[in-house]
Amino acid sequence: MSVHLAKGTRDHLPEAMRLRLAVYDKLRHVFEGHGFHALETPAFERIETLMGKYGDEGSKLIFKILKRGKGGETGACDLALRYDLTVPLARVVAMNPGLRMPFKRWQIAPVWRADRPARGRFREFVQCDCDVVGSKSAVADAECLSVASQSLSALGFHQHRLRLNHRVLLHALASTVGAADRETELLVIIDKLDKIGREGVTKELLARDFEAAAVDKVWDVLDAPDAGRDDVLAHMEAQLEGDEVGPAIERLREVVELAKALGVPDEALVIDPTLARGLDYYTGIVYEFALDGVNMGSVGGGGRYDGLVGMFGKRDVPAVGLSLGIERLIVLLEEEGRTIPGASGIDVTVTIVNDAHLEHAARTAAALRAAGLRVELVLEPSKLGKQFKHANAIGSRYVATVGPDEVAAGGIALKNLTSGEQDTLPLDDAIARIRG
Amino acid sequence: MSVHLAKGTRDHLPEAMRLRLAVYDKLRHVFEGHGFHALETPAFERIETLMGKYGDEGSKLIFKILKRGKGGETGACDLALRYDLTVPLARVVAMNPGLRMPFKRWQIAPVWRADRPARGRFREFVQCDCDVVGSKSAVADAECLSVASQSLSALGFHQHRLRLNHRVLLHALASTVGAADRETELLVIIDKLDKIGREGVTKELLARDFEAAAVDKVWDVLDAPDAGRDDVLAHMEAQLEGDEVGPAIERLREVVELAKALGVPDEALVIDPTLARGLDYYTGIVYEFALDGVNMGSVGGGGRYDGLVGMFGKRDVPAVGLSLGIERLIVLLEEEGRTIPGASGIDVTVTIVNDAHLEHAARTAAALRAAGLRVELVLEPSKLGKQFKHANAIGSRYVATVGPDEVAAGGIALKNLTSGEQDTLPLDDAIARIRG
Repeated sequence: MSVHLAKGTRDHLPEAMRLRLAVYDKLRHVFEGHGFHALETPAFERIETLMGKYGDEGSKLIFKILKRGKGGETGACDLALRYDLTVPLARVVAMNPGLRMPFKRWQIAPVWRADRPARGRFREFVQCDCDVVGSKSAVADAECLSVASQSLSALGFHQHRLRLNHRVLLHALASTVGAADRETELLVIIDKLDKIGREGVTKELLARDFEAAAVDKVWDVLDAPDAGRDDVLAHMEAQLEGDEVGPAIERLREVVELAKALGVPDEALVIDPTLARGLDYYTGIVYEFALDGVNMGSVGGGGRYDGLVGMFGKRDVPAVGLSLGIERLIVLLEEEGRTIPGASGIDVTVTIVNDAHLEHAARTAAALRAAGLRVELVLEPSKLGKQFKHANAIGSRYVATVGPDEVAAGGIALKNLTSGEQDTLPLDDAIARIRG
Repeated sequence: MSVHLAKGTRDHLPEAMRLRLAVYDKLRHVFEGHGFHALETPAFERIETLMGKYGDEGSKLIFKILKRGKGGETGACDLALRYDLTVPLARVVAMNPGLRMPFKRWQIAPVWRADRPARGRFREFVQCDCDVVGSKSAVADAECLSVASQSLSALGFHQHRLRLNHRVLLHALASTVGAADRETELLVIIDKLDKIGREGVTKELLARDFEAAAVDKVWDVLDAPDAGRDDVLAHMEAQLEGDEVGPAIERLREVVELAKALGVPDEALVIDPTLARGLDYYTGIVYEFALDGVNMGSVGGGGRYDGLVGMFGKRDVPAVGLSLGIERLIVLLEEEGRTIPGASGIDVTVTIVNDAHLEHAARTAAALRAAGLRVELVLEPSKLGKQFKHANAIGSRYVATVGPDEVAAGGIALKNLTSGEQDTLPLDDAIARIRG
C-alpha cells in the first residue's frame, strides 16, 4: 500500500522540530518580554468570515470544508481553513467587546493556502504575528520595531535593517506628481522597484501613460540622498506637497527616536522612500525587515492599519503590527547550520548492561531525570558497543553505565561522547558534570 | 455585521493561553526528559489516508476538504482534517523507512471531529500523545507509565493511579468463560462497568444470552481481592485458562517493577482486571490514568498496539504509547484555579510620566527587558493612577516609574503591587528585586 502526504504539505521530523521549537521559544521570549500575550484561534472559520477578505485571487486559495450530513452531498461548504492570522484577530476583537485595550497579542500558528507548491512555498506554513490593537500611540509603533529587531537578534541575525516609510508620504507622492487619481496604479509599479529596478519602473510608468514630467518628479522624490535618516526625511519634506506631509515626517522622526531608546541599533533604522509595502491595508508607518549579507528578500514587515481590525465591528480600531517571515528564517538557519542555544537534545543515554541490571539502569535514569536532565534509557540489553552507537546517533552528549563494577563501587561510569573521557563517579558528581 | 465562531470551536484568549502554554511547557519538559522527540504532521491528510481507519461512526465525523478548481464544483473532496495523531504517525513511519528505531515521539496538536458539540466536547481539541515505535521491550512499556506519572505530577496532580491490565488476559477471560467466539461482545459490556456498575453488566450479559454460569465465572475472575497487586495477579493467574496467561502475568509484574525503578510511586500502580480499554487496537499491556479525589473519569491511557503503526507498510511495527487527556486536565486546572509555577505574566509595567519622559521610559523598559524580564511599557502618557490601574488589570507584579525626581536621583521608583511597598533605587537593584 503506497501512502503519501497531501500535496504541498510537510512532516516536521524530530531534527527539524528541534530547530523549530527553539525558534518558537526564542520568539515567544521576546514577545512576552514586550508584554504581548498569546492568542489561539480555531484552524477553521465560518466561510463567510473569510470570503471577500483577500481579494479575488486570495478567495481562490482558501481551503473550503464540506458540510457534514445532507448539505455536503451537493458540495455545499460552510467552513474554511484560516488563510492568515489577521482576519481571525479582527473577529476576536469584534466578538469580545470586553477585551482590555490596548490588546497586545502574539500568535505563531499555521495557515493554509491552496497555492501552487514550489520550492519554499507550501500549502501549510507558519505565520508569526504581533499586533497592538487599540492604540494610536507612536510608542506602539516603536515597540513593534523593537520586537522585530530583538526577534532577529534572538535568532542570531544581529545584522539587520528595518526599512521605514509612511503611507501618507506615498499618498502625497501621488498628489505631488499629479497622479492623485491613479495612486494605487502608481504605487503598484513603484513597489516593483526591488525586482525590476529603476529603469524597469520608469519604462512601466511611461508605458502606462504617466507623463514624462510626472515620472521625473517621482525620481526627484525617491532619489533621496544616501546621507542618513535626517537628510532623507528633510528631502522628502522638501519635495512632497500637502498638509499631511509634515506630521507624517514628524511621526517617523518620533518613532525612530523611541525605537532607539528601546534599544534598536541606530544603524538598523533606515528611512526608505521607495517602500510601498502593499497598498490598501496600511494607514500610517510601514516597515520591512532585511538581513545584511543574506541574499534573501524581506524577512518580515508590517505597519499601522487603523481600519482593518474594525472590519467586523461598528467602531474604528487602530492597530499596528508586524509579521516575521518565520519559515524563511528557519530555512536560513537550516541552510547555514546555525544552532540555537538551548535547542533541546539528549543530555545522557543510560545503557543496560544485562537483564540483571535493568532496574539499576531504570533507577539511574530516574535520578538523572529528577535532576532535570534529558535522558534516553536504552530499551533493550544488547552489546554495549551497539548501545554507544545508538547514543551517538541520537546526539547524546554523555553515556551513563551502571554494571556490576559500578554497583559494587556505588557510582556510575560516565563517558563524554565529545571528548571520549570516561570516569566512574558518584551520581551527584555525574549530574554536576553533565550539567556542566 | 454579526460575526461568529464556527460551531464547536473556541478562541483561547490570553488568560486561558497562559495556563495552556504552561501546561504544554511542563509536559514537553517531561517528554524530553524521557528522550521523546517532537513531531509535527500537517493538519490535513489525503482523504484515503484517513478513511476506513476509524470505523463507520468515525468516518462520519471526519471533516472533508473540497477539491480546488473543477473537481470542487461537483462536491469532490481530496483532503481531510486530522482525526487523531496515531494514523498520521503510522503514515510517517511508513514513509520514512530510514527513521531511527526505536522512534520515540511526542506530539501536542489539535485534531478535528465533527461531533455534536456539548459541554466539554469541541470540534477542535488538542491531543497529547507519546509513543515508542519499534520496540517490544518491557522497558518501553514502563517508560510510558513513568511519562504518565511524571506528567500528572508536573501539573500538580501528585495523587493519581495508573490502572493496568493486559489484553491477553481479557482474551483469556473470554475463553475461560466459554465465550471465545463472542469476545468483543463480552468485552464491550464489561468495559461499561464504570458507568453501569456490576448489576448493570450482569443484567446486560444475561439479556444478550450469555449463560448464567459464564456470567458467574466472569465475576469469579473480575472480583479480584482488594489486597494488592500481587494477590490480584495471583488470583487472575489461578482463575484464567490458557498458555498465554502466565507470560502476560509475568510481563505485568516486570513492567510494574521497572515502573517503580523509574520512580512511579508504588501506590499509583494498580492492577485492574476489569480494565478493557477499547477492543481491537491493543495487543499487550493496557492502562488508564485517574486522579484521586477528583470526580472525573480517565485523564488518559494507552497501551501496546503492535499491529497498528504498520498499517501502511509491509512490516509489523511494535508500538506502545499513551495519550494524556490534556483538555480535561486543563479544565480541571481552570476549575480549581490552580496555578502552574512559571506560567508567564507581566513582571513589571513601566509608566510614562509625561511626553518629556517618553524616552526615559523606553530606555528603562529596554534595560529591564535586557535583563530577561517581561515588561509592559505603557503606550500613552495619562494620569499615573490610570497607568497603575492598567498595571493591576494585566496582573503586573511591579510598576516602575521614571519621572523628573527619579532622573535627578539616577534611579527608578519601583512599586510592588502585591505588598504596596515603594522605593526609589538604582536600576540593577530594581532588577534584582523584581527577579526576587
